Amino acid sequence: MQPHDLYTVSIHYDRRLYREDIRGSIAHAQMLAKQGIITDDDANAIRRGLLDIQQEIEAETFPWRPELEDIHMNVEARLKEKIGDVAGKLHTARSRNDQVATDMRLFAMKTCDEAIKHTTELQLALLHQARQHASTIMPGYTHLQRAQPVLLAHHLLAYFHMLQRDKQRFQQCRRAAAVLPLGSGALAGLPYPLDRQSVAVELGFDDISPNSMDAVADRDFLLEFHAAAAICMMHLSRLGEELVLWSSQEFAFITLAEQYATGSSIMPQKRNPDFAEIGRGKTGRVYGHLLALLTTLKGLPLTYNRDLQEDKEGFFDTVDTLLSTLQVFAGMIGTMTVNADRMYDAAQTGNMLATDLADYLVARGMPFREAHGVLRRASRYALENAKEVHQLTLEEYRRFSPLFDENVLKITLEGSVESRDLPGGSAPNRVGDALREAQKILETADDS
Amino acid sequence: MQPHDLYTVSIHYDRRLYREDIRGSIAHAQMLAKQGIITDDDANAIRRGLLDIQQEIEAETFPWRPELEDIHMNVEARLKEKIGDVAGKLHTARSRNDQVATDMRLFAMKTCDEAIKHTTELQLALLHQARQHASTIMPGYTHLQRAQPVLLAHHLLAYFHMLQRDKQRFQQCRRAAAVLPLGSGALAGLPYPLDRQSVAVELGFDDISPNSMDAVADRDFLLEFHAAAAICMMHLSRLGEELVLWSSQEFAFITLAEQYATGSSIMPQKRNPDFAEIGRGKTGRVYGHLLALLTTLKGLPLTYNRDLQEDKEGFFDTVDTLLSTLQVFAGMIGTMTVNADRMYDAAQTGNMLATDLADYLVARGMPFREAHGVLRRASRYALENAKEVHQLTLEEYRRFSPLFDENVLKITLEGSVESRDLPGGSAPNRVGDALREAQKILETADDS
Amino acid sequence: MQPHDLYTVSIHYDRRLYREDIRGSIAHAQMLAKQGIITDDDANAIRRGLLDIQQEIEAETFPWRPELEDIHMNVEARLKEKIGDVAGKLHTARSRNDQVATDMRLFAMKTCDEAIKHTTELQLALLHQARQHASTIMPGYTHLQRAQPVLLAHHLLAYFHMLQRDKQRFQQCRRAAAVLPLGSGALAGLPYPLDRQSVAVELGFDDISPNSMDAVADRDFLLEFHAAAAICMMHLSRLGEELVLWSSQEFAFITLAEQYATGSSIMPQKRNPDFAEIGRGKTGRVYGHLLALLTTLKGLPLTYNRDLQEDKEGFFDTVDTLLSTLQVFAGMIGTMTVNADRMYDAAQTGNMLATDLADYLVARGMPFREAHGVLRRASRYALENAKEVHQLTLEEYRRFSPLFDENVLKITLEGSVESRDLPGGSAPNRVGDALREAQKILETADDS
Amino acid sequence: MQPHDLYTVSIHYDRRLYREDIRGSIAHAQMLAKQGIITDDDANAIRRGLLDIQQEIEAETFPWRPELEDIHMNVEARLKEKIGDVAGKLHTARSRNDQVATDMRLFAMKTCDEAIKHTTELQLALLHQARQHASTIMPGYTHLQRAQPVLLAHHLLAYFHMLQRDKQRFQQCRRAAAVLPLGSGALAGLPYPLDRQSVAVELGFDDISPNSMDAVADRDFLLEFHAAAAICMMHLSRLGEELVLWSSQEFAFITLAEQYATGSSIMPQKRNPDFAEIGRGKTGRVYGHLLALLTTLKGLPLTYNRDLQEDKEGFFDTVDTLLSTLQVFAGMIGTMTVNADRMYDAAQTGNMLATDLADYLVARGMPFREAHGVLRRASRYALENAKEVHQLTLEEYRRFSPLFDENVLKITLEGSVESRDLPGGSAPNRVGDALREAQKILETADDS
Repeated sequence: MQPHDLYTVSIHYDRRLYREDIRGSIAHAQMLAKQGIITDDDANAIRRGLLDIQQEIEAETFPWRPELEDIHMNVEARLKEKIGDVAGKLHTARSRNDQVATDMRLFAMKTCDEAIKHTTELQLALLHQARQHASTIMPGYTHLQRAQPVLLAHHLLAYFHMLQRDKQRFQQCRRAAAVLPLGSGALAGLPYPLDRQSVAVELGFDDISPNSMDAVADRDFLLEFHAAAAICMMHLSRLGEELVLWSSQEFAFITLAEQYATGSSIMPQKRNPDFAEIGRGKTGRVYGHLLALLTTLKGLPLTYNRDLQEDKEGFFDTVDTLLSTLQVFAGMIGTMTVNADRMYDAAQTGNMLATDLADYLVARGMPFREAHGVLRRASRYALENAKEVHQLTLEEYRRFSPLFDENVLKITLEGSVESRDLPGGSAPNRVGDALREAQKILETADDS
Repeated sequence: MQPHDLYTVSIHYDRRLYREDIRGSIAHAQMLAKQGIITDDDANAIRRGLLDIQQEIEAETFPWRPELEDIHMNVEARLKEKIGDVAGKLHTARSRNDQVATDMRLFAMKTCDEAIKHTTELQLALLHQARQHASTIMPGYTHLQRAQPVLLAHHLLAYFHMLQRDKQRFQQCRRAAAVLPLGSGALAGLPYPLDRQSVAVELGFDDISPNSMDAVADRDFLLEFHAAAAICMMHLSRLGEELVLWSSQEFAFITLAEQYATGSSIMPQKRNPDFAEIGRGKTGRVYGHLLALLTTLKGLPLTYNRDLQEDKEGFFDTVDTLLSTLQVFAGMIGTMTVNADRMYDAAQTGNMLATDLADYLVARGMPFREAHGVLRRASRYALENAKEVHQLTLEEYRRFSPLFDENVLKITLEGSVESRDLPGGSAPNRVGDALREAQKILETADDS
Repeated sequence: MQPHDLYTVSIHYDRRLYREDIRGSIAHAQMLAKQGIITDDDANAIRRGLLDIQQEIEAETFPWRPELEDIHMNVEARLKEKIGDVAGKLHTARSRNDQVATDMRLFAMKTCDEAIKHTTELQLALLHQARQHASTIMPGYTHLQRAQPVLLAHHLLAYFHMLQRDKQRFQQCRRAAAVLPLGSGALAGLPYPLDRQSVAVELGFDDISPNSMDAVADRDFLLEFHAAAAICMMHLSRLGEELVLWSSQEFAFITLAEQYATGSSIMPQKRNPDFAEIGRGKTGRVYGHLLALLTTLKGLPLTYNRDLQEDKEGFFDTVDTLLSTLQVFAGMIGTMTVNADRMYDAAQTGNMLATDLADYLVARGMPFREAHGVLRRASRYALENAKEVHQLTLEEYRRFSPLFDENVLKITLEGSVESRDLPGGSAPNRVGDALREAQKILETADDS
Repeated sequence: MQPHDLYTVSIHYDRRLYREDIRGSIAHAQMLAKQGIITDDDANAIRRGLLDIQQEIEAETFPWRPELEDIHMNVEARLKEKIGDVAGKLHTARSRNDQVATDMRLFAMKTCDEAIKHTTELQLALLHQARQHASTIMPGYTHLQRAQPVLLAHHLLAYFHMLQRDKQRFQQCRRAAAVLPLGSGALAGLPYPLDRQSVAVELGFDDISPNSMDAVADRDFLLEFHAAAAICMMHLSRLGEELVLWSSQEFAFITLAEQYATGSSIMPQKRNPDFAEIGRGKTGRVYGHLLALLTTLKGLPLTYNRDLQEDKEGFFDTVDTLLSTLQVFAGMIGTMTVNADRMYDAAQTGNMLATDLADYLVARGMPFREAHGVLRRASRYALENAKEVHQLTLEEYRRFSPLFDENVLKITLEGSVESRDLPGGSAPNRVGDALREAQKILETADDS
C-alpha cells in the first residue's frame, strides 16, 4: 500500500472496538425487526453471523483486511461472506457516523467501570498500609522541609481521598458517555420509525441524544475522560515522586519489594524505583493525549469531520496507561516495607516541635508574637548546642522564659500528633475514625 | 525592588481575592469566639476592622504594599494598624496554607455560578434565533461538504446542547470546590477545638475536607474548572469557526451586527468577523492554562509547596476569558441577521437529496446496493446536464428505473427534512419539540 | 506476564532502534580493539555476530523476548547465544545509559534527513502547481473575507517559504542530535582509555558530548525535533484547512484527485477531503507528544531517571505522523485540479479594488482620508446597484469625484496584481522571480 | 465600555511595543522620503512628532485611550494631534498587518539578546561555584539512588552545558525573527516603489521577507522562542528540583542564602526554598503559553486573521518569566553555601565503589560476569556487617577472591573519580579542562 492508502486506515487500532461494534449492531438489527423494518429472520441471521464473527476474532482466526480501513467495514464485509446479501440490511437506518460514536461510548462506559475498579484496588492497598501504620510517626513536609509530625496513616489517607475524587470523576464520565447517539444517522436523523429508546435500554445507556447534529460531532465524553485521567495521573505522579524520595538513601523511609524495583547485578541491596519513575514519567503522555484531542476538536465546524478519527489512539493509550499504572501502584504500595524507626528518627529533627512549644507559652498567657521571639532564641541556642529545641532540659528552657515548667517536657512527637484532634486532623483517634470511614466508603460504594 | 524581591510577590493578582479573604476571616473569628478561643469583643473588633478594610479596597483608598507580598499579609498588616494587637488573634488556629485554599475555593464557587449564568445567556440567544428559524432550511455539512438538508434551528440547537453539558460540568466543579479546607492548618490540623462544620455552613460550603494534608495540597477543583472551561471554549471555537465561514462572501449565510464586526473605512458592506475570530483564538490560552496547572502539579510531594502559588494567574485569566467570550457570543448570536434565502438556495445544490431518492427506491423493494447504483448513474447524468439530481423530470428519472413514479417529484428539501421524524431528528415537529424542551430546561434549572 | 512485568517492557517499540543499536555496538567494539581494551579477534567476532543478528531481524526470524525488556538486552542475549562469552566484552566501558542515548541520537539524525527530504517533496509539489498558475488570479483573504486579488502562485509560495523554515529547523535539530554521548558511562564517564572522537567520526557525529552527567540526562535534541515537527504540522493544518475550504461547494476552487478524497457510493461528483482533514486532525497528536515529553522531563533531578524511557513512543509516532503527512500532502497538492475560472470570478466580487481606486485618487493629489470618503460613497452606490465598485461607468465614477478620468477604467484585477511590484509582492514579474528563486533554493540545497 | 467593546482592546498589553512601533515608523517615513513618496519635510515632522510621543510615554504623560484599541492607533491619533494632517502620510504604503508583525519581530530580537545575556549570567554563577568545588566529591545519582562519586564541579557544569544549548537556541530564534515583513501591506504587497532593504538595514534586520502573504500570517519566530524558553525552563525546573532536594534536612548538601529562601518566625535555621519552588512551578506557565500559541495558529487559513492578536500576552509573560527566573537562579546559585563535608560523607555510602571493585578484578583477568558475582557476595557480607563494601579489610576481601591484594585498599572515592579520565568524564584534570573550556566559551561568545 502507498502512503495515501495507509493514511486513512484505522483497523490496526479500532479493531479494539469489535465487541462494542458487534453488540451495537445486534441491538440495532433486533430493533429494526421489532419495528417491522426488517424481518425477524433477517435479524436472526444477522445476529448469528455477528456472534460467529466475534468468535472468529476472539479465536484469532478472523481475516483482517487493512484495505477495508476500519472495524466497521471489516465486520460488514465478513458478515456478507457469512450470510450473503441480507448483511446489507444491517445498514438500514444507520450511518458510520452514529455507529462509531455509539461504539466509542460503549467502550468509554466499560473503561470508566474498569478505572473505578482499579482505583479502588489502589485505595485498598493504601488503606492496608495505613492500618499497619496507624501509630507510625513521620515528618510531615511543606516545601520538602520537615514541618510537623504526622502519622504515616494520615499521609497515606491523603492519597486515598485524592483517589476518591478521581472515582467520582470517572463516574461523571460514565454518565456523560451513557447517551445513545444511534438513530442520528449521518447528521440529520433518519427517515425510519426507529425505537431509539429501546436500543438505549438494550445497550445499557441511560438516555438518548437529543440532537442528531450534536450527536455525531460530539466528543465531550472522551475529553472528560482524558481530563479525569490526567488529574488521576497527576496524583499518581505525586505518589510516585514520594516513593522515589522515600526509597533514596537520604530518606530511607521505605524499601520497595523486589518485583517493583530493579536491582543491580553487583549491589544486592540496590533497589532502583523504576516502577515509580515510569508511572511518574507516564503522566506526560496522558497530559499529551488530552491536549491532542482538545487541539483536534478546536475550530471544527459541524458536523462530522474526518479529523474525528483521531479520537481513538490517544484515548486507548490513556486507558492502558491509566489502568496499568493504577495496578502497578496498588501492587507497589501493598508490598512495600516501611522503615518506621527511620521515619520516627527523622521526625525527631527539624525542630518540628517549635510551634508546639510556642503554643504552650501562648496557652500560658504569653502573646503570640512574644512567644515566637522566645522560641527563636531557644531554637538558636539549641542549634548552637547541636540539639533539637524540644530536647532542651527544663533548666535550659527556663533561661528563655519563666513560664516553662515541667509540663514542657511532655511536648513530644506523640503529644504533638495527638493535639491535632479535630475532623481531618492527624490525631490518632481522628485518623482511626478516618480509617473506618474510608473502609465504609469502599464497602458501600456500588462502584467498587 | 530587586528581581529576587519581586519574584515571590503576588499582590498584583491575588488582591482579586480580597472579598473571599475577608469573608473567610470574619467567619473564622466568629467561630473562634463561639468556641471560646478568643473573646466576643475581639471577634467583633476583628469583624469591624475587616469590613472597614473591605470598604477601603472598594473605595480604592487601600494602601497596597507590594513588599508585603500577598493579599493575606496586606489585609493582616492593615488590620493591625486599625485595631492594634488584637489583630494578631485572627491568626490563631489558622495557617496561610488553609487560608489561601479557602479563598480560592470561595472564588471558584462564585465563578462557577457566573459561568452557568453566562452560558445560559448564550443558550437563550441561540434559542431566540432558533425560534426565528424553526422552518429555515439550510445545508447540513459533513467534511464541510453539503450532505443533507436540515433546519437552521436544528443546527443552532446542537450548540444549545453542547452548552447544556458545559453547564453540568460547571455545576460539578462547584460541588468539587464546595469543600472547606479551613481547620487543616499548615498540614496536620490544629491543636484547638474548632467547629469546622459551622464555618462551612457560614461560608456556604457543602462539606469539610476529610484530611488536612490533602486539603492544603489539593488543587483538583481548579483543574476541573480549567478542563470544563477548555471544553466550553472548544465549543465556542467551533461556533466561532462557523460564524467566520457563514460571514464569508462564499457562504454569505449571515450578516453580523455592526458592533460585532469590524468595518473597512472604504468598503461600507465589509464586515470582518473579528469577535468570532478572537473568541476562536482565545481557545489557545484556555488550553494553555489547563496544561500549565497540570504541569505545575506534576510530581509535587506532599504537602504545600510554593509552586502552588502558580495556581492563580492562569485561573483568573481563564475565568475572564471564558466569561467575556460567553457574553460576546451571546450578543453576537442574538444580533446577527440570517440570510435565509441564501441558505435555502445553497441547500438546493450538492445533490443532497440523492440519499432520499435511494431510500425511495429501497422503500419500493429495490435492494440497497442496487438503488445506490441507480442513483450513481442518475447523479452522473444530472451532473452532465448541469442539474441537481432531484431536479430531473419524471421522464428522466424513469430512464434509470421504472420504479420511479410521480411521487418522486415530492422529494424535496422540505420532504427530506420532514422525513427525519424521530427523537433528535431534524423534522420540523421534532425540532418544535426540541425548542420547547430547551425552553423548559432553562426555566426549570435552578442554576440559570 | 503480570502488569508489573509488562510495565517496564519497551521491546514492542524500541526494537525499531535495532539498526542504530547494532551500528553503535560495532563502532564501540572496533574502538575498544583499536585501543587495546579487547582483542581484534573479539571485536571481529562481535561484529560478525551483530551483523548476523541484523540479518535475522530483517528476515523476521529473530526470536524477540519480551521478558528481556528492551532492544539492548535482546541483542545482547542473542549475541551471547551466537558467539558465547566473548559477547560480554561488548559491554566493557559502556552503560545502558550512554548506549540508549547514542541510539536515539542516531535515529534522530536519520529522521531529520528524512523530514528534510519529504518537506522538499512537498515544496516541489507546491512549486509545480505554482508554475502552472503563475497568472491565475484569485482573491487574497484576510479574516476569511476577500481583501485583495493575488496570484495563486503567490499564495502557494507562501507555503513554500513556511516549509523552507521548517527545513532549517530540521537541520538545526540534526546538528543538535549529532553529539556523541557514548563514553559517558552510567553518568560519570568510564575508567578506560577510550577514543571517543574516533567513534563519533565512525558513526557520523559532528562532536562528542562535553559532560558525562549532562549526556545521559539530556533529551533536548528530541524536544527540538518535537517542536520543529509541531510547527511544521501547524503549517500543514493551515494548508489542510484551505484545501477543505477550497473543496467545498461554496468555494469550489479546487477538485482533489480521487485517490486523495473519499467518494460517495451514490454521488459520483462527491469528494470528501478526508486526507486534508486527517492531516489537520493529526496536528493534535504532534502537539500532544511535544507536551508529553516536556512534562516528563519537568523537575527531574540529574542524571538518568527511568522516566526517560518515555521519550520513545511519542517520538516515533511524531516521526511517522510527520513523514506520512508530508508525503500525503505532496501527493494531494501535486494531483489537485485548480478551477481557475471560479477563482477569477470570485476575485471579481468583494469590492477588492476599492483600495486601488482610493490609491488612484491619492496619486492624483487627494488626501488619503478624503479619498476614503469618496470610495465609501461610491461603494455604497455600487452596492445599491448590485455592482462591484470597479464596475462603475466613468460617468458614475465622476459623480463622486472629478479627479476620475478614463484611466480609472484600467483599474482591473490584473492591474491591481501588477501594481504590487516590489520584493515579496504579488506582481507577476515578482512572482516569476520568486518561482525561480524557489527553484534555486531547492537545487542548491545539499539537504534536498 | 461594554464587553463587546473591551473584547478587541489590546492597548493594556501591546503598549509595551511602543519603542518598536515608533522606531519602525520613523524608519518607514524616512524611507518614504528617500524614495520621493513623501517630502523630507513631512518625514522630519513625523520623526519629531514620534520622538515627542516616545518622551511622553516614558515620562508617563501620554494620554492612553482604550477606545482606540491598540498601540498603533494610540500613537497614530496622538501624532495627528501633534503634527496635524501630515500624520496621515505615515500610513502611506503600510498596513496594520505588516506593521504589527514588524513590531513583534523587533521586540523578539531584543528579547533574544536579553535571554542570552541572562543565561550567561546564570552560567557565570554556576562556573563560579564549580571553580570553588573543583575537588568537592559528592554522590552522583541515577534513579535518585547514589550511583557513582563525582565532583560537584562536574555536576554543576552539566547545567552549564544545558544553558549553552539554550543560548544557541535563542540565537537561532533571533535569526528567525530578524526578517523584515514591512512592505508586505495587508497581504499582497504595496503599489509603491519602496526600498525594503534599506528599512531592514536601518532597523537591524538581516533580511526582508520573501513573500507578502506569508509575512503577515507567519508567527514561527514566536513559536521558536516559546519552544526555546520551554526547554530552558525545563532545565531550570531540574535545577530547581535539585536545589529543593539539596536544601532538605535529608540531603543537607547546601544552604540557600537568606534572600533566596523564606524563613520561619520561630525557627532561625529554617530555610524554605521558595524561590527554587516558584521557578520550578513557573515551568507550567511557559509550557502553557507554547501550547496556547500552537493551538491558536492551528488550522488558520491565509492570511491575517484576528486570532493572531492572541500572540502577544502569552509571549510577554513567557519573556518576563524566563528572564526573571534566570536572574533569580543566578543569584541563588551564586550565593548558596555548599556543605562539602556532608556531600563527601554521603558519597561514602551507597556502595558506590562496588563497580570500581569489579573493574579491579576484571583488570586482573577475571571475566566480567564472575567479577560481578564476587562483588554481589562481598556487598551482601558488608551489608550484614554494617559496612560499605569499599570499607572491608584486605582479609575480608580475600575471603571472596584471591585476586585482591593491597592495591584494593587504594580504591577510594578519590580514586574512583580520578579514574574517569576521558573527555567529558569526572576526573579532576578533565573537569579542570572543562572549567577552562567553559570560561573560554563565555569569553569568546560575542553574544554574552
